[in-house]
Amino acid sequence: MKKIEGGVCAAKGFSAAAAAAGIKYQGRDDMAMIWSNEPCEIAGTFTTNVVKAAPVIWDRDIVESGRKVRAAVVNSGIANACTGAEGREICDATAEAAACVLQCEKEDVLLGSTGVIGMQIPLERIVAGVEALAPKLDRSPEAGLAAERAIMTTDTVPKQAAVTFEAAGHAGETVTVTVGGMTKGSGMIHPNMCTMLAYVTTDCAISKEMLTKATKAAIDDSFNMVSVDGDTSTNDTFLVFANGLAGNACIDREGEAFEAFCGALNTVCMSLARQMAADGEGATALMEVRVRNAADVKSAKILAKSVVGSLLTKAAVYGHDANWGRILCALGYAGVDFDPENVDLYLASGAECAHIFSHGSACDYSEEKATAILSQPEVIITADMHQGSAEATAWGCDLTHEYVNINADYRS
Amino acid sequence: MKKIEGGVCAAKGFSAAAAAAGIKYQGRDDMAMIWSNEPCEIAGTFTTNVVKAAPVIWDRDIVESGRKVRAAVVNSGIANACTGAEGREICDATAEAAACVLQCEKEDVLLGSTGVIGMQIPLERIVAGVEALAPKLDRSPEAGLAAERAIMTTDTVPKQAAVTFEAAGHAGETVTVTVGGMTKGSGMIHPNMCTMLAYVTTDCAISKEMLTKATKAAIDDSFNMVSVDGDTSTNDTFLVFANGLAGNACIDREGEAFEAFCGALNTVCMSLARQMAADGEGATALMEVRVRNAADVKSAKILAKSVVGSLLTKAAVYGHDANWGRILCALGYAGVDFDPENVDLYLASGAECAHIFSHGSACDYSEEKATAILSQPEVIITADMHQGSAEATAWGCDLTHEYVNINADYRS
Repeated sequence: MKKIEGGVCAAKGFSAAAAAAGIKYQGRDDMAMIWSNEPCEIAGTFTTNVVKAAPVIWDRDIVESGRKVRAAVVNSGIANACTGAEGREICDATAEAAACVLQCEKEDVLLGSTGVIGMQIPLERIVAGVEALAPKLDRSPEAGLAAERAIMTTDTVPKQAAVTFEAAGHAGETVTVTVGGMTKGSGMIHPNMCTMLAYVTTDCAISKEMLTKATKAAIDDSFNMVSVDGDTSTNDTFLVFANGLAGNACIDREGEAFEAFCGALNTVCMSLARQMAADGEGATALMEVRVRNAADVKSAKILAKSVVGSLLTKAAVYGHDANWGRILCALGYAGVDFDPENVDLYLASGAECAHIFSHGSACDYSEEKATAILSQPEVIITADMHQGSAEATAWGCDLTHEYVNINADYRS
Repeated sequence: MKKIEGGVCAAKGFSAAAAAAGIKYQGRDDMAMIWSNEPCEIAGTFTTNVVKAAPVIWDRDIVESGRKVRAAVVNSGIANACTGAEGREICDATAEAAACVLQCEKEDVLLGSTGVIGMQIPLERIVAGVEALAPKLDRSPEAGLAAERAIMTTDTVPKQAAVTFEAAGHAGETVTVTVGGMTKGSGMIHPNMCTMLAYVTTDCAISKEMLTKATKAAIDDSFNMVSVDGDTSTNDTFLVFANGLAGNACIDREGEAFEAFCGALNTVCMSLARQMAADGEGATALMEVRVRNAADVKSAKILAKSVVGSLLTKAAVYGHDANWGRILCALGYAGVDFDPENVDLYLASGAECAHIFSHGSACDYSEEKATAILSQPEVIITADMHQGSAEATAWGCDLTHEYVNINADYRS
């Protein structure tokens, strides 16, 4: 497997475009389109929030139908959530407009929205946006990057990732398969899932069943392990498009080829999830929480997520304050049983590591060193539970004044 | 039932004291003592955190033993949590010192600590503090208030409440029973329970069994419905001391007298819990979330707690921004099933009320009025679920720059 540059246009047969539709933002691109030259198998995961945005319901119905798809149309600025019947009609009209300009069925078009909840999307603007997007579809990396930028809200940096791996072709020859993707998400981000939209494209030939299986596994270890603020959004959408143009022998069962694809998809998702955590609203530091030697994987995940979601731990990281009691406290209220006297805690960044807690009380560590570690842009908190051999990693960010600035005044 | 002034010294036979022991804070009282002239039945609830501070374990063992008690000794500044065997020895020595000066058994003395996790309490200072406290014990309201101030950490105001009610005496005469209490808690506050210490004293004659029952009911509707930051502390302790000096016929079964006592205890606990939410770290507004017409009480509580704990809702209240989508979103991820199109949302403060969401989309409300409501020091968010007839109320506060200030730099 090889990491490469690029995002949704990295895989064969995919193109993308961005346009300024003025849906809510002015003076910037706020709509994106992804298109595949060939029909795609599609797998997806959506928000677990009872309140689901209209485009989430639209996409879920299509993904569950089993049909192949061709395109995605995404807007930023307005989430089209809590918008009732009118919101659903806007979805239908948007897909209809896309089907018309792309010459496909409206059910070939997936939709995504992100932004303010409760406002209606102006119909004429989103339709005009769709019409502006189609002629601009382009396979260049620049087009992929422009699409990513168009779906950003409070994100400060675009987030893309892509990898290639070798697979066997139909005649036994070696072919290159590419998996690439983009994501947006910065606030309202919490496991299961994030306020995030993520689109991954691949030219891998793979059955819907195996694509769904790989997607489920990838998301559990990546996007579902990210927390910025504990708020699970109404719009979370993660979609993987597979158009088969790589020419590999179609993956329709478990085995080496499936494992290789899972590895590639995992790598892309982990990279996107990590980038998203690092760009959490107002963040000055990425927090990576590693739980080691837990009794089982489920417990490890719960413990890691509890620490990464603890406001007091997040504020302490922002303050470069090695207030490790808050870490132990967050482990303690996670809902997993353990003996605090058996836990070891470490703080690390780069090559620096400090052992801060052991045998039920503080180690004799240097506060100066701990502060230096916590002043780095990536802070790794490790908890060794000494209960078993399971492990998990979760990602988040510090809690800052800027987070409050952004969210006290988001709609204005 | 009548509300009166006062706190832990309001009920007959209780006295209190405060002293400056220099445990961590300098130049202020940081230790408190409560003493009862007669042995007390005791009921208590403690943190659900797996990581329990040493004094929590000390108290729990005594409460579970069934014995009567006489005193409480509390310090602020250091939490004596994650302190291993040394922390437990400090508890033992503190109780021993108190037993010596108060001339009682060490198991008659309950302990409480609040402050930084992980540091050791200097033994000689806490013992000297105990010795300074005992001679200062006093029944005056001022002594009660001084005790409350001594246990505060980031609290900005003392929190006390007291009520009286009439009950039948041994010979059928009418006697007055008093219930009074104090609490501290500002950060690391979350349902089940709060980083809080709360001490309630009553001169009611009541059996341990009935006192325990009343305590459980009172806390479920009060302290367990408060959230400031989602972090459940290692030290939460809620204790009710009942010395029987009111001379009422001992309450040893359900009935009118028990109901009257429950009503009084509830009122004190609700008042303390509400004061605690309003004084949440950095808070500029008390958030009261009322869920009405939910399917059942459990669902109502879960929904109310989800909204009161939503960072994005809290930040919107701070920004006086009627971003109601975040409220609906927080209801949606609570884990309770409902139809969003059936929910009504209201914002209110004082006599002002705005109906903001109905039938799946925004009402035609005035943003100006909504902003005016959100600019008040007490904001009431009401969600009518139209599913049944159960209701619940939760309390919290807005998320502010000051919260980040306080918690990024707590140990310094």
